[in-house]
Amino acid sequence: MSIKVIKGGVTQPKRFLANAVASGIKRSGKLDLALIYSETPAVSAAVFTKNSVKAAPLLVSQKHLLNHKAQAIVVNSGNANCFTGRFGMIYAERTTELIGKLLRIPKQDVIVSSTGIIGKPLPYVKILNAAHALVQGLSKTGATKAATAIMTTDTKLKEITVQVNLGGKKIIIGGCAKGSGMIAPNMATMLAFITTDAAISAKMLKQALQKATELSFNRITVDGCISTNDMAVIMANGQAQNEPITHPGKSFDIFCNALNLVCLDLAKKIVLDGEGATKFIEVIVSEARSEKQAKNIGLAIANSPLVKTAAYGNNPNWGRVAAAAGSLGIRKVCEENLKIKFSPFDKKHIKIMVDLNLGQHQATVYTSDLSYEYVRINVAYT
Amino acid sequence: MSIKVIKGGVTQPKRFLANAVASGIKRSGKLDLALIYSETPAVSAAVFTKNSVKAAPLLVSQKHLLNHKAQAIVVNSGNANCFTGRFGMIYAERTTELIGKLLRIPKQDVIVSSTGIIGKPLPYVKILNAAHALVQGLSKTGATKAATAIMTTDTKLKEITVQVNLGGKKIIIGGCAKGSGMIAPNMATMLAFITTDAAISAKMLKQALQKATELSFNRITVDGCISTNDMAVIMANGQAQNEPITHPGKSFDIFCNALNLVCLDLAKKIVLDGEGATKFIEVIVSEARSEKQAKNIGLAIANSPLVKTAAYGNNPNWGRVAAAAGSLGIRKVCEENLKIKFSPFDKKHIKIMVDLNLGQHQATVYTSDLSYEYVRINVAYT
Repeated sequence: MSIKVIKGGVTQPKRFLANAVASGIKRSGKLDLALIYSETPAVSAAVFTKNSVKAAPLLVSQKHLLNHKAQAIVVNSGNANCFTGRFGMIYAERTTELIGKLLRIPKQDVIVSSTGIIGKPLPYVKILNAAHALVQGLSKTGATKAATAIMTTDTKLKEITVQVNLGGKKIIIGGCAKGSGMIAPNMATMLAFITTDAAISAKMLKQALQKATELSFNRITVDGCISTNDMAVIMANGQAQNEPITHPGKSFDIFCNALNLVCLDLAKKIVLDGEGATKFIEVIVSEARSEKQAKNIGLAIANSPLVKTAAYGNNPNWGRVAAAAGSLGIRKVCEENLKIKFSPFDKKHIKIMVDLNLGQHQATVYTSDLSYEYVRINVAYT
Repeated sequence: MSIKVIKGGVTQPKRFLANAVASGIKRSGKLDLALIYSETPAVSAAVFTKNSVKAAPLLVSQKHLLNHKAQAIVVNSGNANCFTGRFGMIYAERTTELIGKLLRIPKQDVIVSSTGIIGKPLPYVKILNAAHALVQGLSKTGATKAATAIMTTDTKLKEITVQVNLGGKKIIIGGCAKGSGMIAPNMATMLAFITTDAAISAKMLKQALQKATELSFNRITVDGCISTNDMAVIMANGQAQNEPITHPGKSFDIFCNALNLVCLDLAKKIVLDGEGATKFIEVIVSEARSEKQAKNIGLAIANSPLVKTAAYGNNPNWGRVAAAAGSLGIRKVCEENLKIKFSPFDKKHIKIMVDLNLGQHQATVYTSDLSYEYVRINVAYT
């Protein structure tokens, strides 16, 4: 039942290692190449951006995940390898080959991910030169290094680890993420990498990740943009020796609750690290006809620059909230039915509560305010 | 054939009068109550906001337009009369009754419109006290006064008048609008009022206005919000004595071209008066499968805060444009097909050209950049 938050990151579950190096892709000389590795084969699942413009590493990873297995995730920051043509695909492929060879695993079991500037060729030679040290340095203490290496405009490291009991066995889920406000400037990306030592079938793992994503990463928005590189990946290596989860039921629910907590925590950290964000805003839409309706109206409110600037200005302007709610043109979302309430508005964490009076469904969406700083960051970035 | 832009506004067409007074709704003491009047009965058409939260004056005007006739438009600024409950409806109704009585026309022939703060009771008594002077002062020179009275956060007056020949008769279309960036703070509104002395059937007038709106007011966006009070109204009193336009054909096309020019000019003036706007951005999406697809992708690009801040920063960032184009998730809008070009980016008027390579349709969408000033205005407003 009880989920315990413990210290550590993606190397906390059994038999996971991680490392990161500064390969030189980032001119600053900061860590920019991360590797997360399971010493034993793992089942794996992922969700990818819905943007029709997809970066090369996503296309390669999608292909590699067709067998629902993975043993390593290699991630570079500083370059998105997006809109990079034929060579973008070749370099993404080669990266998986290279890491696979050094780890002595098939390239199909290596997931590749990138974040950074769009449209610049990936300096593959830097990955080639750094790969040996990256693999050599894999260790049980490398989680935070890996979580650091995936950061771009992020100002804060994003990690969490939880522990639950599953039929007498202790299972651990660790995760790290990057993203400052759903997207960072220049469409740098929302990424999440999750590891667990739970034993779970590929099918149930995929379901669990989709559910958790829907309630977390799909419920945050800073400026309504969807990046070309967004992805969330989970590897489950079964080393906790629990009775494998192969069907819905109590064990699956416990696992899902724990995974939801991991994803929601990471999602909230992304919002809180939003570009120029000074406030965390929770938009709770209730009494909707469906959960989807509640979510869509929540996102319309959370995406409204007028609502977000009002929040920044400590101005609980329900006219703007009502107009945003109505902007989807859903006929009965109107003056007669809408009820709008605010938590005290001069706090760091505020709640906007909207009752639609149309049904019994609810959804919560998370966002940040819109400040001068958002404009400054996005103007300055080149 | 040739459309001539001439001086003047809504009183330029024959037998139209206008006036405005300071009724006191605006605390500043500025003009805030406008009246546009045709001395003879006119056919009329209107388009209203698609927001499901509709202000009281829209609901009343929709009802009054069921007979496709109108002779007067009364507009107040400083109060949106939106989310004002039963009394909002009563006061909107009463305003039309009052003006109707003073003009000796049925209240059904009076259109009412409001713009300003949402959720504050309309101070109807101020309209009551000012109505007599408003009607008394109607004159052939009142157009600019009326165009001034409908302004809220607008920094510039928006008027245009054009003249065309229709079968040997000179017909005139005059218009005024308000709106600083599709919407002004607190959801103050996009309004357009158009007069013409052309003789045209109600059905053709409605068609012409819908077309013109689709190509102008529906193609501009500053922050993606749709106001609760948006409306565009046209009155055509037939005093030009042209052969009435009752069906599609050459005369109708000439009329439509002239009306398109009026609406597009007003729409562009709204964008240029956008909150904190320093640039006018034209997004031209070509080679789309349909005009609707071109328009939707254009709006996605024009609404992207990342594209808009890049424009403000003189940064022709095609990665952001590509990602915005892809954000709708249309499968073939992808790296292989997209071609993106920019006009020189350090100018006041810039063009973003996107070829989808999917078909033969095109649409142009207009927007402005996103500056610090936008945030300042929308934070400061209460």
